Order: sequence, then structure tokens, then C-alpha cells
Amino acid sequence: MEPRLLITLGDVAGIGPEIVVKAWPRLVQVARPIVVGDVGWLRWAQDLVGWQGSVAAVSRIEDAIPGPAVMPCLPGSEANLRDVVPGKICAAAGRAAYDFLCRAIDLTMAGQADGIVTAPLHKEGLHAAGLPYPGHTEILADRTGVRQFAMMLYVQGPNIPHGLGVLHVTLHMALRKVFESLSTAAVLEKIHLLNGVMRDLCLKAPRLAVAALNPHGSDGGLFGDEEQRLLAPAVAQARQAGIDVSGPWPSDTLFVRAVRGEFDGIVALYHDQGHIPLKLLGGMHAVNVSVGLPIIRTSVAHGTAYDIAGLGQADATSLVEAARVAVRLIRARSLEGERGALAP
Amino acid sequence: MEPRLLITLGDVAGIGPEIVVKAWPRLVQVARPIVVGDVGWLRWAQDLVGWQGSVAAVSRIEDAIPGPAVMPCLPGSEANLRDVVPGKICAAAGRAAYDFLCRAIDLTMAGQADGIVTAPLHKEGLHAAGLPYPGHTEILADRTGVRQFAMMLYVQGPNIPHGLGVLHVTLHMALRKVFESLSTAAVLEKIHLLNGVMRDLCLKAPRLAVAALNPHGSDGGLFGDEEQRLLAPAVAQARQAGIDVSGPWPSDTLFVRAVRGEFDGIVALYHDQGHIPLKLLGGMHAVNVSVGLPIIRTSVAHGTAYDIAGLGQADATSLVEAARVAVRLIRARSLEGERGALAP
Repeated sequence: MEPRLLITLGDVAGIGPEIVVKAWPRLVQVARPIVVGDVGWLRWAQDLVGWQGSVAAVSRIEDAIPGPAVMPCLPGSEANLRDVVPGKICAAAGRAAYDFLCRAIDLTMAGQADGIVTAPLHKEGLHAAGLPYPGHTEILADRTGVRQFAMMLYVQGPNIPHGLGVLHVTLHMALRKVFESLSTAAVLEKIHLLNGVMRDLCLKAPRLAVAALNPHGSDGGLFGDEEQRLLAPAVAQARQAGIDVSGPWPSDTLFVRAVRGEFDGIVALYHDQGHIPLKLLGGMHAVNVSVGLPIIRTSVAHGTAYDIAGLGQADATSLVEAARVAVRLIRARSLEGERGALAP
Repeated sequence: MEPRLLITLGDVAGIGPEIVVKAWPRLVQVARPIVVGDVGWLRWAQDLVGWQGSVAAVSRIEDAIPGPAVMPCLPGSEANLRDVVPGKICAAAGRAAYDFLCRAIDLTMAGQADGIVTAPLHKEGLHAAGLPYPGHTEILADRTGVRQFAMMLYVQGPNIPHGLGVLHVTLHMALRKVFESLSTAAVLEKIHLLNGVMRDLCLKAPRLAVAALNPHGSDGGLFGDEEQRLLAPAVAQARQAGIDVSGPWPSDTLFVRAVRGEFDGIVALYHDQGHIPLKLLGGMHAVNVSVGLPIIRTSVAHGTAYDIAGLGQADATSLVEAARVAVRLIRARSLEGERGALAP
């Protein structure tokens, strides 16, 4: 049976509605998608992009029968979205984005759906609604009660057909603060998380690498000591645990080697170390994958793009890729479940 | 007249000799090249790669008549290179690499040549010869008596046909030390240097950008303050001086924008910030350009590659690109000279 994939509409003042409608013909090819969002804004987006199907409000997942010409939508919020203006920060849109996500989480946790793909939300919209979250990840962690989690940036596209996942040890913090947050334990935890998710995506033991912090990987200790002091021990411990990981490798050549096919996944130490190469390599093929949650969730790797919201120009590639990756993860987990059931 | 380009052979235990011979047919198409090096090692490399021309020892530049089948070589060192073994660190090879470079600098400073293109040397080889330099740049600065200088990494190739130059504010130091070295004055100096060299390469006022230090450019001060405190003032002062520069821009999207043609040059703040994207974009098309010297000098952007030295497999693309860039700079300076001579 096709995986039941919930597509949350995100902040309706952003490009969420238009990319969901644009992506729809491709989404129904990879999964059984159901939008958790707002019927009115989907119909608005339908007019905007000239989609010829119909948006069907449904109140239960089992009533949803998605198809190329039918887009089922579970209304996901009580917020009044009539006065939302594309491209403008708005409390109602922020509230609704939060509600859509919570509804999707609850349905997936209850086993009524197999995974979630999220369209972008806007931090300022959340804040305007009195919801002090920086983004999706923290809401997902909160609501699923998880503490060890991470976001993986993943690309499989023309520049990197075999796929590459990058998991960051630190993310949204000043570069100056990164040093306090790096430890052997933190790196080891990320290696384990990356190994788990990339094993599901590769369907075999993935080949992982850890990026060095300093230029030339410190050139044997000439500039910096984190490589020997923190990173090498994490790699050694992970290898003892049976993980195929190496490094730390100088980060400027590491990504070139990954492009050549040498690695499936990389642990990066700070935001730009992983984001600079993956944005260059990935373009619109980049997606985010939640790692360590009890549910499967992927996301577009771009924001609400308020500057072009409502113009009908937004590119839906990342949403389609996010759905593809979610389906691969769902299938891998389901295989593991079957194997588990067969084991003595 | 064709620019007279001195090609220094670098460390003969590395891939220098074989890439010079491999590049030769392309070098004579762009310039009037003369090798400063060692006749014996060039003939050895000639046999290795099967080049059908002849290496001609010359004692003066004016005697050199390079052509597709004739490679003039100015012997550039008294060091005994007979016992050098490809791929092995060696004091004689380090000494000779230093001598080749010094001879080329002196000849170019004296106006007998128009520029220098350097094959790679090896730091450990220099050290074995008792020469405590980390690389070419410091020797060039010392010998030309310059204090304000920098290296620009430049790529013009299939991934970035319009070309992109990246100049780093800090380079070979621990990431932890970068913060002490960043200042408005240091960034402003690099903007000026980048503007000068990119104006010569673009033959018009270049469009420059400064990379942010923190993720998302600190997201309005949420993580880090260097953007507002140090970088924005440098950009403002450079703009007041008439330079077309903007930023600081979040570095993960900045390089994507540069690939799309928005910028000609970028000031990067630390080694990997510039090297990760340029190595991905450039491959063997990346070259190094000395900026701020009284002479023109470009270089391959790779090392001696001891692991493949002597196998005849080394790729000479970067050497050819370095020669092309040197010729563009020589022509631009010559135009400026003519304009200067015509000015009242």
C-alpha cells in the first residue's frame, strides 16, 4: 500500500500553498498524500498556478482518496486566515502553521499516517502568534517528547546522484560559541544518528566521514588541536561500535571526495561548513530530514520566501524531493519492522 | 608582443616537472613561457609523459625562443638534484624550489619578464633545506619587500564561466583564532585588494560581496554580532570609497548567488569558508593569484601531490589556467600603463 503522507501547508502567507499545488501531480506518484492545512488557501493557490483538479475537504484520513485531480485536505486550524496577505508576517498564519504541524504529528504518532512532509513556516509568524519556537524542529521534539534529535540536510540530485546526507553537531549559534559545544560525546552522538538514518536511506551500512574543524584538519596540530583532542576519539569509538566512519578530514576536500562517491554521509561541525557545500550542490534538490524522532518527517530545505509568495513563481522541487525521501524512509522502517517480526 | 611568462618548476620531487611538460602545448598558445628550473628533471618528465619536443637550456631570457616543440629552461639552482626521488621530502629539492622562485622574482622585478606562474613546492622540503617559509607567498612578500598582500583563489571554469575570485581575511590559523584577527580595518584592506585585482581581471568595476561570519549572517544579531560590529562598517567605508561592494551576506547562499552571476569577487573570513565552495566549483580550474605584489604572479591551487608524483597521471589544468590568468593580468596592467602614459 502507498505510504500515507501528511503534507503540512506551513505559513500560508509564504509559498507553502503554491508549492503544494504545483507539486501535487508528482506527490501522488510517490505516495498517498493528504494535505493538513486550509481549503480556502489551497483553492486560492489552485487559481494562482492554474491547477485543474479539485480540493476536497475531508475530516478523517480514511476518507481521503487522493489522485492526480483530487487533493484531499484535512482542515488543520481554527485560526481565521481570511485576512492573511501573501508576504506579510501574520499571527493567524503563524498560529495556523503551528496547528497544522501539531495535527499532523498527533495523527502520525497515533499511527493514522506514515510520515510528515512540511512546507516552510516563518519564525516571526510563530512569534507574532505568541509561540516562542524557532522552527519546526523544536515543535516536533516537544510534541513527540524526544531529547536526542537532529536535522540532516540531504541532497540527491544531478550534481550528486548517489546522495549525500550532512548532519551538523552545532547549528544556529554564533561561530564563536561553536567551540564550547563541540565534544567527543556530541560528535559521537551525531555519528550514531547519521548512521541510523543513512542506513535507512542507503539500505546498507553507510560510509560516513567527520569533517575537521581547522584548515587542513589542523595540518598535524599546527593550527588547532580539536582534531586530535575531540574528533579522532569520537571516530575511534564509533568504529569500535561497528560504524564505517573515518576522519576527521580537511573539510574543503572532504566534500569534493563525497561528490566523487567516497562517502554517503558527513558529520559537519557548524552550520556553514555543511550548508555552503550542500546549497551549492543541491539547489532545490536539498531537503531536511528529522533524525531521532519516533516519527518520519522530512521538509523542504528553503524558507517561506515571502518576497515571491503569491506570484506563482516558487519552485516545488524541494517539496517533491522531501516526499520522495520520506517514502524511502517509511519503506525502510517497514522492512525493518517485518524483519523484526520474523526474528525469533 | 606575447607576455614573457616565467614558469617555476617548484619541488621536483612533486608533480611540478610532469605538469609543466604536460601543459607546454597549451602554455605556448597563451604566452611566451620560459621555465625556471632544471633541465635534467624536465627531460625526465618529458620521457615520463612522452612529449616529442626538446628542452633547451638558455642562460638569458632574450635567448629563449619557446615554441610547441621547444621548451627553453633557465637553470635556476646550484642544488644537486640527481638523488632526488619522486614523492620523497628532500632538502635539495626544497632548496632548488626556493632558488627557482627567487631567480624568477629577481628577473621579473628587473623587468626581464612580465609575470610568474609557479608549480607547487613542499613546505617540508623547504624546512629540510633550512628555509623556514610556510610557502610561496611569504617568500614573494619578503623578496619584493611588500607588507600588504594576500592570496586570491580564483575559478573560471565549466561551473562558473564568468569567473569568481575569493580573497580570505584569515587563512592558515586555527578557527578559534580567527575572531582575534577579524577587524573592520582588515576586512576593508581585503576589499581594496580584491577590488584592484578583480578590476584587472574583469576590465570593469567588479561587483564584490563580503561573507558573513555567523550562520544566517547572525539573523539580525540573534547569534553573534561581528556582522554589525565589524563587517558592515567595512562595507560602508569601502562603498564610500567608490567600491561596488555589499554584504555581509549569509555565506551559504552567497556562493550560490555568485554562481548565478551576481558577484565577481567575495571576501571570505576564514580558510574553509572560501575553500569549501571554490574547491567544489573549481576542481582543477582553481588557481591562486598573488594580490598586492609589485609583480604579477599566479599559481596552481594544488600541492605537490607526492602520492602520485612520477606516475605521469597528474592533471595540468590548474597550471594552464594559472598561466591564462597571469596573461590577463599582464594585459590589464599594460593597458593601464598605456592609459597612464597618455594621461596629461
